[in-house]
Amino acid sequence: MNKITILIHCKDSPNIIASVTNFIAQRNGNIVYIDQHVDREQNIFFMRLESEFTIPSFSTNTFKETFKNGLAKTFEMKWRIYSSEKKPRMALFVSKYDHCLYDILGRYNSGELNLEIPFIVSNHADLKPIADNFKIPFYHIPVTKETKAEAETKQLELLLKHKVDFIVLARYMQIISEKLIEKYPNKIINIHHSFLPAFVGAKPYHSAYKRGVKIIGATSHYVTEELDAGPIIEQDVAHVSHTYSIADLIAKGRDLEKIVLANAIKLHANRKVMVYNNKTVIFS
Amino acid sequence: MNKITILIHCKDSPNIIASVTNFIAQRNGNIVYIDQHVDREQNIFFMRLESEFTIPSFSTNTFKETFKNGLAKTFEMKWRIYSSEKKPRMALFVSKYDHCLYDILGRYNSGELNLEIPFIVSNHADLKPIADNFKIPFYHIPVTKETKAEAETKQLELLLKHKVDFIVLARYMQIISEKLIEKYPNKIINIHHSFLPAFVGAKPYHSAYKRGVKIIGATSHYVTEELDAGPIIEQDVAHVSHTYSIADLIAKGRDLEKIVLANAIKLHANRKVMVYNNKTVIFS
Amino acid sequence: MNKITILIHCKDSPNIIASVTNFIAQRNGNIVYIDQHVDREQNIFFMRLESEFTIPSFSTNTFKETFKNGLAKTFEMKWRIYSSEKKPRMALFVSKYDHCLYDILGRYNSGELNLEIPFIVSNHADLKPIADNFKIPFYHIPVTKETKAEAETKQLELLLKHKVDFIVLARYMQIISEKLIEKYPNKIINIHHSFLPAFVGAKPYHSAYKRGVKIIGATSHYVTEELDAGPIIEQDVAHVSHTYSIADLIAKGRDLEKIVLANAIKLHANRKVMVYNNKTVIFS
Amino acid sequence: MNKITILIHCKDSPNIIASVTNFIAQRNGNIVYIDQHVDREQNIFFMRLESEFTIPSFSTNTFKETFKNGLAKTFEMKWRIYSSEKKPRMALFVSKYDHCLYDILGRYNSGELNLEIPFIVSNHADLKPIADNFKIPFYHIPVTKETKAEAETKQLELLLKHKVDFIVLARYMQIISEKLIEKYPNKIINIHHSFLPAFVGAKPYHSAYKRGVKIIGATSHYVTEELDAGPIIEQDVAHVSHTYSIADLIAKGRDLEKIVLANAIKLHANRKVMVYNNKTVIFS
Repeated sequence: MNKITILIHCKDSPNIIASVTNFIAQRNGNIVYIDQHVDREQNIFFMRLESEFTIPSFSTNTFKETFKNGLAKTFEMKWRIYSSEKKPRMALFVSKYDHCLYDILGRYNSGELNLEIPFIVSNHADLKPIADNFKIPFYHIPVTKETKAEAETKQLELLLKHKVDFIVLARYMQIISEKLIEKYPNKIINIHHSFLPAFVGAKPYHSAYKRGVKIIGATSHYVTEELDAGPIIEQDVAHVSHTYSIADLIAKGRDLEKIVLANAIKLHANRKVMVYNNKTVIFS
Repeated sequence: MNKITILIHCKDSPNIIASVTNFIAQRNGNIVYIDQHVDREQNIFFMRLESEFTIPSFSTNTFKETFKNGLAKTFEMKWRIYSSEKKPRMALFVSKYDHCLYDILGRYNSGELNLEIPFIVSNHADLKPIADNFKIPFYHIPVTKETKAEAETKQLELLLKHKVDFIVLARYMQIISEKLIEKYPNKIINIHHSFLPAFVGAKPYHSAYKRGVKIIGATSHYVTEELDAGPIIEQDVAHVSHTYSIADLIAKGRDLEKIVLANAIKLHANRKVMVYNNKTVIFS
Repeated sequence: MNKITILIHCKDSPNIIASVTNFIAQRNGNIVYIDQHVDREQNIFFMRLESEFTIPSFSTNTFKETFKNGLAKTFEMKWRIYSSEKKPRMALFVSKYDHCLYDILGRYNSGELNLEIPFIVSNHADLKPIADNFKIPFYHIPVTKETKAEAETKQLELLLKHKVDFIVLARYMQIISEKLIEKYPNKIINIHHSFLPAFVGAKPYHSAYKRGVKIIGATSHYVTEELDAGPIIEQDVAHVSHTYSIADLIAKGRDLEKIVLANAIKLHANRKVMVYNNKTVIFS
Repeated sequence: MNKITILIHCKDSPNIIASVTNFIAQRNGNIVYIDQHVDREQNIFFMRLESEFTIPSFSTNTFKETFKNGLAKTFEMKWRIYSSEKKPRMALFVSKYDHCLYDILGRYNSGELNLEIPFIVSNHADLKPIADNFKIPFYHIPVTKETKAEAETKQLELLLKHKVDFIVLARYMQIISEKLIEKYPNKIINIHHSFLPAFVGAKPYHSAYKRGVKIIGATSHYVTEELDAGPIIEQDVAHVSHTYSIADLIAKGRDLEKIVLANAIKLHANRKVMVYNNKTVIFS
C-alpha cells in the first residue's frame, strides 16, 4: 500500500477542498486525514491531507506530475507531496550541552521518532561518547572565527552527502550563516531557552532572573536570518518563584527545552508544519 | 448567505470525504471548515464540516432532504445538519452557588456565547436577583423528596415551551432523573468539581484533601444515568499543596469550574462535540 | 485575640530569625506562620511572620514601638507590622471592560477577598450599573488630555478621603501619572494582557497574533514610572494555535486576566508580597 | 563549615519555633532556611530548618544528643537531623523501560541530583548497557513466582551492603513485598503512570483511553502496602484529545513520568518531604 501526505497553500477560493478530494477519489485513493485552515487576514488557504492507495499500479511520481500540471496550476498552489516510504533525514548539530541530545536519542531508540539520523556534528568533541553509545556517526568540526567559513563548507558537504532533509540545533551554540539558512529554508529547527519574543539573544535565564518573571519558557522555531525571530513551532512554560536562583532556572529550563524541541521535531518530521508570513500553521 | 454545519459519524469506508465534499460542491457550497477523525478501535468515521451557500435558491430543508435520501443512506450515516441562522437555546439550572452563573451571564452579555438563554430555573430563590440584573426570566421550582416528580414535570413544561436545545447544570445540586435524561440525551451538561474519574460523587474537595493530591481538577460532562460517568467534554486542573485547607481547595476549584464549564458550553453551542461509545470527539 | 503580620527585609546577618522569634516569645506571642528568603546575589534577608497574642494587655502600638526601637534598629530593618483587625482598603479603577470588575466583585461578594472596597472610579459611566448591583459607590471622573490633571486631583481626594491602602487598575485604560505613583509606591496593581516582558505597551494581543506565538499570557504587576516594567506579582498563560483570530486571543485572554489579577489582589491584600530591586518576593 | 537540616513534627503548641531557633542561636548556628506548617485538622506542627555552624568545635552528634534529650523531649517531637556532608544513597530498581533510567542518569551526570547511586538492580538484563555507559554497578536479579522470596533476600543484602537510604522504582514492574516496605518506610518512591487516585493498578493508559479523559497524569508516591495508595509526593498532567491512540497516550505519558519522578527524587534527596497520616508535607 502507498501512503502520501499532501501539503498545500494558495489563495483562498471556493471548491479547493472538493477538487482535491475528488482528484484523489478518481485515483482510488482513500483519504485518511484531512485538515485545513484559512488565514482570513491574508486570505490564504492551507490544507494537509493523507491518502492511501491500494491499487498496484499507483505511482507517487505520476500522481505528483498529474497534480502539478492540473490542480496545482488551476489554483496556483504551493504544494509538497511526501511518500510515507521515505523517512525524513535529520542532522543533529550539538555543542557541549548533552540534555537535548540524550533526550532525542532516547526517543529515537524507543521508536518514538519517525526519521533517520545519519550523523551528529559538533564544534566540540565532548559528546562523541554519547553518539558512540547510540551508534550514530559523529563528526567533530571545530569552529573559530578564522575557520568558520571552512567549517561551514565541511558541514554542507556532510549534509549533501547524507541527503539530509532538515537540521536540528540541539543547543548548538553557534550562529548559523545565511548560506546554510538559504539552502535549508524553514528546515533548520532551533531551541531557544526562553518564551520568545521575551528575552531574545544570549543568556535568557539571566534576563528572566533579573526581570523577576514568575514563568519561564522555551521556544522551538525555524532559523531565519534575524536572530530568534523565525516562525515559532512550539512553546512551553513552567512556573518559577523568587526562590529560584539562576542555576535553578537553568535546571528547570532544561526540562522545557527537551520537551519543546522533541515536539517540534515530531511535528516537522510528520510533515505537520506549514510556514507562511513568518508564522506556522500546525496540523495536529 | 446561508451557512450550515454538518456532523456525521458512520462505519469507516473509502470515499466518504470525497463523496461529501463533492455533494456540497455540486450544490455550489464553499467548504470553509472540514475536520475528521477515525476511531481505529471501533472503525468509526467522524466528520465535521462547515459550508457556505451564496446562491439565492439554497434551502437548508431541501439540502437536508437530499442528503438524507442520498449519501446518508449510502454510508448509513448518523448525521445532524445545523443552520447558523438559528442559535441554540440553553436552559440554566442553578441552586445556591453563584460563581458559575455570574461567569456564564458575564460571557453571555459580552457576546462571547453564540446562544440564547430563554430562562434560568432553580430549586432556591437565592439567585433570582442576579437573573433580574441580567434581565433573564427566573423560575423558582422548589424540589423536595415529595415534590420531585411534580417539579420535574414543571421543568419539562418550561423546557418544551421555550424550545430548549440543551441544558446546563451550573452547580445545580440535584440528581437529574432518567426521564429528563432520556428527553435530552447528550444535551445536559454538568460541571463536576473534580478531575474525573477521581472523586466521583459528593464532596470531591473533601476527598481530594483526604487523599493529599497535589493537583485538583474540574470536569464537564454530559449527564447519563450513571452518576458522574457520562462522556467527558472538557477538563482542567490546578496545582495545590499541603498548605491548602478544604476551603482553599474549594476557592481554587471555583476558578476551574467556571472556565471548564464555559468551555464545554462553547464547544457544545458551536456544535463541535460528537459522542460515541460514552466518549467525545471534540472538533476544535 | 490579637493577630499581627510582620514583614521585614534587611541586610542578611546571623541570628535575625532567632532574635525575632525570641522577641515574640518574650511577649507571649505564638508564631503561627514563618517564612523567609535570602537573596544571595544582593545579600538581602526577607521574612514574613504571623503571630497571635492572647494576653489581654497586648497592644499592637506598643509592640510596634518596642520593635522599632529595638530589633529594627539593631538589624537596620525595613519593616511593616499589620494588625489583622484592619482589612486593607482597595480602590478599583475601571474603564469600559467589565470582565475583571465582575470577577472581582463576585469574589468580594462570596467572601473570598479579605479587604474592603470603599469605591469604584471610572473615566466612563458605562459600568455604573454593575457597581450599583453590588452596592458599591461609583464615581465617574472623565479624563481628557485637558482635564487629566484636574481628574487626578479628584481621584486623589477620593483616595485620601476613603483612606485607601492600595489601588487596582482593573483594565483602566489610562496611564497613571507620576504624582499618583509616588503617593502609592508598590501599591497600584495593574493587569497587563500579555506575558511580560513580551509585548509591552498597547495592543499586545495584536502583537502576539502577528508574531505567531503558541502561548499567550497575562501579567499582574505594580505600576512604576516605566510603562509595564514594574515588579511582577503574578503571571499565567494559556496555549493557543494558528486557528485563533485576534478576537479569539482576546476572549481567551480575558480568562487569564481575571484569574491573574484576582490572585495578585489576594496576595497583596494578605500582605504576602515584598518588593525589592524591582522584583517581588511572594510568600505563599 | 557544618550545615544541618532538621525536620520536626509534633503536636502543635506555642513557642516551638522560638524554642528551636533559640536552641540553634545558643549554639552559634545561623538559620538559613525555616519553613513550617500546621495541620489544623490534626493539630500537628511541622517544621523544616537549615542551619550553618562555623565554630570549629561543632559536632553534629553532640547537637543531636542534646536536641534529643532537651527540646525533642519537651515537645514530644518526631525528628530527624541530617548533615549536609553525607549525600543520601539511592538504589534504582528498573525492569525493561529505559526512559526514566536515562532521564535520572542524565540528571545525575549533569550534577543536578544531590545523591549517590551505588547500584542499579533489575529483574531483566536489558538495561545493563545503559548502566555500563554511566559506569554504575548493575545487578541482574531475575524474579519469578518461585524465586520471588529468594530474589528479595538478595535485593535486601545489596541494599544493606551498600548502605542505601532510599529506593526508587523507575518503572520496576513488580509488586514490592511487605518485608521490604517495612524496612524502608516512606523510603521507596514509585512512579505511577496515572493521575492518582484515578486509574489505580495496571494499564492506566488503557483505562484513560477507555474513559475518554481529556487530561492524563503521572504520580510519584511512597510505596505502602496498599497498591498505589501511598502518600503522594508529586503529580503532573498533560492535555490530550480524542485523536490520541493508546500508543500516543503512552508516549506522552513517558514525558510526564520522567519529570514527575525526577522531581520526587529531588524533593526526597533534599529532605524536603515529611509524611503524616498518609499525606506529604512538601517544603519547597
